[in-house]
Amino acid sequence: MAQRATLNSVAEAAAVSRQTVSNVINSPELVSPDTRERVLEAIDRLGYRPSTAARQLRTARSQIIGLRIAPVGNGVSGVVLDQFLHSLTATAEEYDHRIMLFTAADDEAETRAYADLIASVGVDGFVLTHTHHDDLRTRWLKERELPFVTFGRPWGAENTHGWVDVDGARGTRLATEHLARQGHRRIAFVGWPAGSETGDDRRAGWEAGLAAAGLADRPQIPVFDGVEGGRSAAARLLDEPVAPTAFVCASDSLALGVVGELRERGLRPGADASVIGFDDTPTAAVLGLSSVAQPIAEVAAECVRQLRATLRGTAGAEPTSTLLAPRLVLRTT
Amino acid sequence: MAQRATLNSVAEAAAVSRQTVSNVINSPELVSPDTRERVLEAIDRLGYRPSTAARQLRTARSQIIGLRIAPVGNGVSGVVLDQFLHSLTATAEEYDHRIMLFTAADDEAETRAYADLIASVGVDGFVLTHTHHDDLRTRWLKERELPFVTFGRPWGAENTHGWVDVDGARGTRLATEHLARQGHRRIAFVGWPAGSETGDDRRAGWEAGLAAAGLADRPQIPVFDGVEGGRSAAARLLDEPVAPTAFVCASDSLALGVVGELRERGLRPGADASVIGFDDTPTAAVLGLSSVAQPIAEVAAECVRQLRATLRGTAGAEPTSTLLAPRLVLRTT
Repeated sequence: MAQRATLNSVAEAAAVSRQTVSNVINSPELVSPDTRERVLEAIDRLGYRPSTAARQLRTARSQIIGLRIAPVGNGVSGVVLDQFLHSLTATAEEYDHRIMLFTAADDEAETRAYADLIASVGVDGFVLTHTHHDDLRTRWLKERELPFVTFGRPWGAENTHGWVDVDGARGTRLATEHLARQGHRRIAFVGWPAGSETGDDRRAGWEAGLAAAGLADRPQIPVFDGVEGGRSAAARLLDEPVAPTAFVCASDSLALGVVGELRERGLRPGADASVIGFDDTPTAAVLGLSSVAQPIAEVAAECVRQLRATLRGTAGAEPTSTLLAPRLVLRTT
Repeated sequence: MAQRATLNSVAEAAAVSRQTVSNVINSPELVSPDTRERVLEAIDRLGYRPSTAARQLRTARSQIIGLRIAPVGNGVSGVVLDQFLHSLTATAEEYDHRIMLFTAADDEAETRAYADLIASVGVDGFVLTHTHHDDLRTRWLKERELPFVTFGRPWGAENTHGWVDVDGARGTRLATEHLARQGHRRIAFVGWPAGSETGDDRRAGWEAGLAAAGLADRPQIPVFDGVEGGRSAAARLLDEPVAPTAFVCASDSLALGVVGELRERGLRPGADASVIGFDDTPTAAVLGLSSVAQPIAEVAAECVRQLRATLRGTAGAEPTSTLLAPRLVLRTT
């Protein structure tokens, strides 16, 4: 391994004491301009970097952010978290922070992992995903006054922590209004059973879109996520006395099922009936499925910015809430 | 924050010196059994963990493994790396190691990131993905004798570092032989233009499968990856005087294109013509596409095991090479 520059080698090269080098780094105003110049030149020439381990012991800051990586599901939406991970890492790097991954089987295991990461690695803070009603993770972190931010609003809980989320209802409303403008009068919703925060939110947006367009018909069949769910919901909706001519779906997987059922019946998606999915997965792009896209890179960047403000103590007294708007990506369906 | 147990509080609780506690942790043979027992009990009761920062300064080991996270591509295969990331993190945790992510625009930027992560965080070693001919990253790491392992063999280069890979040629050969056993006599390959290591390897497996089945016809149209590429290759192959009845594809994206073109022509995938993709993406599972599955969890676990052996100095004199077998997942196409 190449010889690593140390405080000692810099001090020697600049003909100053170790304390002076340390001062140039931590309290430059204590050092005369000439000496500062000489030390900075030596730091530069030797490629010296104060090691994080040493800095951590001094400042109790590791510059490390913890993130639980969820197991890959069966759907096609995993890649949304993939994008999130990449953007999070890139933005953290801009602020000289790093993302450290961990796994956990459930929320309680996640809190145990927090404790472990703080004690062993000295992680500074956490980014949480998949927030939900009665989330013991945010409670655990709040009680201990640990810095964190969530991708996902504090569903049902008080607004006591910083969060970033995407306005899902706005996405399904955009989709519904677009379909109504195209002349569709019977626009169905294919979504999850009531009780999931994200699913209820997306259903509410569809209802708001119908109301805004003055449409009273509300055809919907709640199903669990997946292509088969979408297919069976579409089959039942298409068998109704007056079949819908458009489908707003809570996910791309559901939408793919609807498209499959339409084709099965000889109906051309995009011509005989319209379908709009949610999440704008690569699968949607690849198969020409219209979809609602979440601004994932912005969510990630905003998470890092909020957490960074908390860590620096520059966050306001009130926790910051950021609700970002999704956009409609129209393709062939 | 809960009061964190320290070397001091353990020493006090066990009524011994700080040095004795340190000895119990680092050189237990120096401590009498009775005292050792008492200190271990105090460590356990107080939940004391030697902090990584302190341990790192002492042992120059951070227990942190660096991994570059690649930007999300346009295809549907991103999720394969997602699975890799999760398995890597989970296996690293079993060995008390952590995965730290970083981004880099290209190979040279990746080597600069190595230098930065070693200097600033003290990362112990790296897992590299996407190895290729004349890979400057592995050369850079070898020259500095830094610990690393690659997911991907050292294409064309000498076998001077540890690697784990999946035998892609075996996968396409399995697919080809399966199709030949089903009675197909004209089995096409839809893959990438010559010159990509992975693509050439998969093409070679198809050729070996044809040879083993005694089939002389080698219909193929090289195309760039993507559904459109698969569609246009299938169109040209189906327009040939004797059209293929089966398609072995270098990716699921290409296979989805082939399936689309078959449907466009009123041919039923799985009945009128067979299609097998590569990577067993969630999209393949969701759409019923047969595919070659890589044992990603095993690849990740083996990467961690090899790197761990290198870090502990228990690796053999010769670098370890592990080539894992893929398996064929048959669905409806």
